[in-house]
Amino acid sequence: MAPAVGSKSDDDQLQSTGRQENQGAYVCGINDLKLRPYKLPESLRPEQVRVRIKAVGICGSDVHYLKYLKVGAYEVKEPMVIGHESAGVVEEVGSQVRHLAPGDRVALEPGVPCWKCSFCREGLYNLCPDMAFFATPPVHGSLADQVVHPAELCYKLPDGVSLEEGAMCEPLSVGVHACRRAQVSPETRVLIIGGGAIGLVTMLVARAFGSPRIIVADTHSERLTSAKEMGADETVLVSRNPEEMEKEIEEIRKKMGGPIDVSCDCVGSTKSLTTCLEITRSAGRVCVVGMRETDMTLPIITAISREVDILGVFRYRNTYPLCLDLIGSGRVDVKPLITHRYKFSEQDIKDAFEMSANGGNAIKVMFNL
Amino acid sequence: MAPAVGSKSDDDQLQSTGRQENQGAYVCGINDLKLRPYKLPESLRPEQVRVRIKAVGICGSDVHYLKYLKVGAYEVKEPMVIGHESAGVVEEVGSQVRHLAPGDRVALEPGVPCWKCSFCREGLYNLCPDMAFFATPPVHGSLADQVVHPAELCYKLPDGVSLEEGAMCEPLSVGVHACRRAQVSPETRVLIIGGGAIGLVTMLVARAFGSPRIIVADTHSERLTSAKEMGADETVLVSRNPEEMEKEIEEIRKKMGGPIDVSCDCVGSTKSLTTCLEITRSAGRVCVVGMRETDMTLPIITAISREVDILGVFRYRNTYPLCLDLIGSGRVDVKPLITHRYKFSEQDIKDAFEMSANGGNAIKVMFNL
Amino acid sequence: MAPAVGSKSDDDQLQSTGRQENQGAYVCGINDLKLRPYKLPESLRPEQVRVRIKAVGICGSDVHYLKYLKVGAYEVKEPMVIGHESAGVVEEVGSQVRHLAPGDRVALEPGVPCWKCSFCREGLYNLCPDMAFFATPPVHGSLADQVVHPAELCYKLPDGVSLEEGAMCEPLSVGVHACRRAQVSPETRVLIIGGGAIGLVTMLVARAFGSPRIIVADTHSERLTSAKEMGADETVLVSRNPEEMEKEIEEIRKKMGGPIDVSCDCVGSTKSLTTCLEITRSAGRVCVVGMRETDMTLPIITAISREVDILGVFRYRNTYPLCLDLIGSGRVDVKPLITHRYKFSEQDIKDAFEMSANGGNAIKVMFNL
Amino acid sequence: MAPAVGSKSDDDQLQSTGRQENQGAYVCGINDLKLRPYKLPESLRPEQVRVRIKAVGICGSDVHYLKYLKVGAYEVKEPMVIGHESAGVVEEVGSQVRHLAPGDRVALEPGVPCWKCSFCREGLYNLCPDMAFFATPPVHGSLADQVVHPAELCYKLPDGVSLEEGAMCEPLSVGVHACRRAQVSPETRVLIIGGGAIGLVTMLVARAFGSPRIIVADTHSERLTSAKEMGADETVLVSRNPEEMEKEIEEIRKKMGGPIDVSCDCVGSTKSLTTCLEITRSAGRVCVVGMRETDMTLPIITAISREVDILGVFRYRNTYPLCLDLIGSGRVDVKPLITHRYKFSEQDIKDAFEMSANGGNAIKVMFNL
Repeated sequence: MAPAVGSKSDDDQLQSTGRQENQGAYVCGINDLKLRPYKLPESLRPEQVRVRIKAVGICGSDVHYLKYLKVGAYEVKEPMVIGHESAGVVEEVGSQVRHLAPGDRVALEPGVPCWKCSFCREGLYNLCPDMAFFATPPVHGSLADQVVHPAELCYKLPDGVSLEEGAMCEPLSVGVHACRRAQVSPETRVLIIGGGAIGLVTMLVARAFGSPRIIVADTHSERLTSAKEMGADETVLVSRNPEEMEKEIEEIRKKMGGPIDVSCDCVGSTKSLTTCLEITRSAGRVCVVGMRETDMTLPIITAISREVDILGVFRYRNTYPLCLDLIGSGRVDVKPLITHRYKFSEQDIKDAFEMSANGGNAIKVMFNL
Repeated sequence: MAPAVGSKSDDDQLQSTGRQENQGAYVCGINDLKLRPYKLPESLRPEQVRVRIKAVGICGSDVHYLKYLKVGAYEVKEPMVIGHESAGVVEEVGSQVRHLAPGDRVALEPGVPCWKCSFCREGLYNLCPDMAFFATPPVHGSLADQVVHPAELCYKLPDGVSLEEGAMCEPLSVGVHACRRAQVSPETRVLIIGGGAIGLVTMLVARAFGSPRIIVADTHSERLTSAKEMGADETVLVSRNPEEMEKEIEEIRKKMGGPIDVSCDCVGSTKSLTTCLEITRSAGRVCVVGMRETDMTLPIITAISREVDILGVFRYRNTYPLCLDLIGSGRVDVKPLITHRYKFSEQDIKDAFEMSANGGNAIKVMFNL
Repeated sequence: MAPAVGSKSDDDQLQSTGRQENQGAYVCGINDLKLRPYKLPESLRPEQVRVRIKAVGICGSDVHYLKYLKVGAYEVKEPMVIGHESAGVVEEVGSQVRHLAPGDRVALEPGVPCWKCSFCREGLYNLCPDMAFFATPPVHGSLADQVVHPAELCYKLPDGVSLEEGAMCEPLSVGVHACRRAQVSPETRVLIIGGGAIGLVTMLVARAFGSPRIIVADTHSERLTSAKEMGADETVLVSRNPEEMEKEIEEIRKKMGGPIDVSCDCVGSTKSLTTCLEITRSAGRVCVVGMRETDMTLPIITAISREVDILGVFRYRNTYPLCLDLIGSGRVDVKPLITHRYKFSEQDIKDAFEMSANGGNAIKVMFNL
Repeated sequence: MAPAVGSKSDDDQLQSTGRQENQGAYVCGINDLKLRPYKLPESLRPEQVRVRIKAVGICGSDVHYLKYLKVGAYEVKEPMVIGHESAGVVEEVGSQVRHLAPGDRVALEPGVPCWKCSFCREGLYNLCPDMAFFATPPVHGSLADQVVHPAELCYKLPDGVSLEEGAMCEPLSVGVHACRRAQVSPETRVLIIGGGAIGLVTMLVARAFGSPRIIVADTHSERLTSAKEMGADETVLVSRNPEEMEKEIEEIRKKMGGPIDVSCDCVGSTKSLTTCLEITRSAGRVCVVGMRETDMTLPIITAISREVDILGVFRYRNTYPLCLDLIGSGRVDVKPLITHRYKFSEQDIKDAFEMSANGGNAIKVMFNL
């Protein structure tokens, strides 16, 4: 990526003129975040809406793009607006939009699939090869004053659901997709490795799906405290040391008090995935939600030979209505996940990303625009 | 295991006296196979049958036990009758056996589950923790003149099915279970890595399940010739060299002429499984049928992040009736798999195991008793 | 069936002598219930247990047998001990029983399948053609001082679960099987027609399976009051008049406030099933739990043409461990269902069956032995 | 519907002028079919194509509209172009169409869903409430010189597949959807009631899905002859007389020689569906493909109480690629179904519909344009 382009004087000029003053938070280089004008299309297509963004959460992938300018094969080559966990208020609707009107509060599902390829037609639209996803290069994200988005991916918030909770539908969706893929039900005892935001939403959803017993394991004791407060039946403090694994497995088994039907790896390291492969009961499922390391040396046969299925989770599909229902009915409470809040100023954005990157006791860092 | 016990004179004595003369082929030590008396229970339990064995195939695991005295966690600690792919003729039936009578030709399903644990009750009896399986220590196998077996695991052969074909139901069952788990249908393009007996039965079953396009890959060209003759649409000669993998993947893709929906790894090496993980289309299935290496360094994320499910195959369940139907109706022809035949003498047994161990152009080595 | 045999003097004699004094409640003719000696086998088979029965609930089918001496194709031709919802205390265990010991409190799963037929092997043991089920002629039931039962069908009660709750596992199992078959999840809005014991257990289980919205409809307002108290989100009073159906459907739809994903017909009449077929959303499921009428004139095309699947429920399978877990963890509370209690005397039995038959505000009538 | 509008002189004028001369076969009243100008939009939308129609088959619903001006709730209120089983040659493509070019031969999937509602997103697009389907009022059909259609619903024909075979993908799709819903596999014995076009395509697909044994029943012996020639293992001549049913069931059972796993009712009468409900094995599936009668008196409990699932088929989804593959590879041969061919003149159209309506030995009547 070229050095940051644009200048403050450009920004100043634009800020003076109504609609044009739309600003976005751009990743302009490594650890280089800038507020700059973000131009929207002149007019809406018939099925689009324009949304004034009010709440945006920071995701681990956002932080990763800022630090390394890439995630997996995706590379930031031009300055890109960051952010994809968002909610806002509809400002304008296209000519054919029926289910939304200006003033409606909405959660924005960030990925726009083609709806017509074989994956989309079979209901697997998260795997659409033509997906345009907020803040996945070269597509701009949603940490901006306003964005234009397909109406069918904007979900009206029920009365009791706040804009922040609307933004939380995005990470919650990952938990929903994980629990659906792993077939979590009232008969499923679940181990969750990783007590960060994704581990916690997976825990909340597993509970809502009826799981009778959920254990969360993490390397940070304060995360385990949060997990316990938010509903984990038990927690286990684990280390990064592979030599401790056997002992830790013993402890998890003991605390579970029965076969572990599903293990969700929300970390994605050799050690965490190995633990899942070893510990899950025959005919159970290992659900890989977090993906940190790429090539891992794994005792895969230990799972395979007991018909433990290994299932991946790539984003989610058809989750937003359920997420809003879970939140709106109180069956899931995502508010405790939001530990820090920031404004939409250049300094705040820098601070917010720093807070999010540092981990520690920050679970979800949220912008209020 | 102690040095081989028993002596030829013992055998001679026993051979002279009717029922007692029952002999089995024992693994008595590394590469030490002996014909020795195999004592059957005095009387049958109400639901048992006594079967005179007529055909037994040699499986890779039999060879492995003979070479190493163990497979995975199972260890041969006492001399053990080998063999588990078998068919024979019923000699005597227990008091409550209704569906069989002396003279009936039967295929023997080698694994005896408890039928009552939670796995058995849910139809997953292959995962029964109390399974007693022919020639899995400490359970004796079926390469013997006669064996006693539960009647419900002896399947009457239809008129047109030979005893050898009856014995072939065992490896064929692995192919059936693999294709069921991988959901092979007329919409499924299948890659099979490994053209040995298991690869070939998987191919035959995938065809019977309607797969429109099947490619077999192997490191031996003569195996590919067999695969082609037995119905593969295309074959690809691969090497053991990981650096060739990318090029080979290219060739497989090209020959498939469409997305690879299912990959069956019938080898179980890092390279073969890596190929499967890389090559299978998003939302496809990798089915691990062969298990050679235990800890492998794998690009598991390449599959996981595209929601390619990784599914193991441990033996099989509820397959024998289907196998007999597939063979009896001619939809599957297992006869070409049987490349070598031996008698049930000590010398023949040694020769047969040597032939089977050497690989080469031997696919299935069969005893005729 | 012959006129009632046996005499009070017989009973008196038997009552004096320890183990022999075992008594059962026999259906001896229409509305003719008698306490008479129930002879147990002299000795236990290795996998059996002898249980002193402590709690037995009355089911609609028990009442039906007493009134008509038959249910469907099953006919009472000889005096038969009634009762199949039962729990008790283990008195003696067979030689191979490992998981139970005298003194253990257990719930008894009433159906004994063969475990070995194709249905049993595939996990569908409730459909086993050789099923021997308590109080399904000619098999005796469990309303007796003691019964002998296979150990694998006796489930140890967790500490916090009472014997009455153990007996309630039987009707609860029907609800579990219905919700599994209908795939009830946190995404499933459920209509339940019929607020009797089966409708209520289905409601309790649907809630435990995460259903966000459950409506119960019945013709008796007091049943709706119970349903509401036990957790229904809404109730609808319906009539037996088919002409009211359209209006009632309107009301149900309105109260549901969204598509009805699953309808459970716990009545089994033309009107109730018609309502389900009409009201369930496209691609939803109609689950037929109650079966009262046999030939019905149904607008089946209205469901079929929208791919609403019509699924039956015949008893249940693999439900007891889940039921005990649901009750033991407090996720399901079956105690409010038990509205009446009786002793195990001839007069009490008569009174109890009369109470159960009269319906009214009796939901579950329970014997304490 | 008003009396037929338009006049022959209008038609004559239009026929002289290039593109405008596009003609369609309109249902103008009961048994009143007319060739009249069918105006296409001035220009294509970016994702549309214009197709010159070359082959159109007549479906039972087309005949029904002509005879009664309605099918179910759909009513012909304005003259409507009939026909929906069609293939043709692309004449022009919209600006964003990539996978097609003028000259390409294509099969047209007749139903245009919204792609964005909850049904579409979950892969159930056949149930889309906003579906616009050829020749389902008020949407015009495809029996016309040219039509405009979404490019994503036009499937390029492989080289060996004729335009007539392309048109046959439509009825074949019904068979595919039925076999998918009923889970037909190499383990599924299938009874098909009804030997018309839909019964026969269901039979062809069941065979391609691996069914080992298929019996076709019909009331016309000539249809059974066709069924036998096209691959049925056995056929059974049945009557319309309900009193014969028991005897016929006996005959079907005997000829099947094993449990009937799936019954496909391709007739939709009380008798045919009753037969299916009675004859299907426990835990099997009854698939309702044909729908003739609406309210039927059915022994539904006989199926429900054995957990025979009753599944409907409404059109189809995601079938065209498979249909083209089945035809292109020779696994399914639809050519014998085409028994009569007509030109695209007013007289021919009348004759063709008469032939199709008369039934008899006509299976599929096809137009060549």
